[in-house]
Amino acid sequence: MEELRTFVIYDIVEDRTRTRIADACLDFGLTRVQYSAFAGMLNRNRREELFLRLRQILGDGVGKILLQPVCGKDVVQMLLCENERPPEEEV
Amino acid sequence: MEELRTFVIYDIVEDRTRTRIADACLDFGLTRVQYSAFAGMLNRNRREELFLRLRQILGDGVGKILLQPVCGKDVVQMLLCENERPPEEEV
Repeated sequence: MEELRTFVIYDIVEDRTRTRIADACLDFGLTRVQYSAFAGMLNRNRREELFLRLRQILGDGVGKILLQPVCGKDVVQMLLCENERPPEEEV
Repeated sequence: MEELRTFVIYDIVEDRTRTRIADACLDFGLTRVQYSAFAGMLNRNRREELFLRLRQILGDGVGKILLQPVCGKDVVQMLLCENERPPEEEV
């Protein structure tokens, strides 16, 4: 089954729930792209499995979870800019 | 020129810069989908224009900005779950 790069973007009020959502994303092999966003390769089954798991973790809690698969044609059109934190300067 | 739903996901250390990034996304007609993520329809020119603007705002500051266009075929595969904050209860 075709794997697509999938973004998981969430907005979770409760700290403990937010941590559990992040842990589930890591369990599914995703990498953090932002404080509350992950991305990684998933096929359709795994996407649905992850979505069910995240919904279960959220339960009745306030929040939003969005899973967006992106095909290869779109992935190559991604624009990215990153400035890393400079290494600590020696005193 | 074809418009694609475009996600802007960022991770910006400095508060003032983060606010300016959000304002630029709003200027380009995007809607907030998370504390540091926006989405909306943009064609290729507008995406590049927005990306240049955001890079300019970030300057040498520490942070990451990611623009990801998503074609219609992928948009319909989005999985979304949202629990709204309950209305304030009357005392």
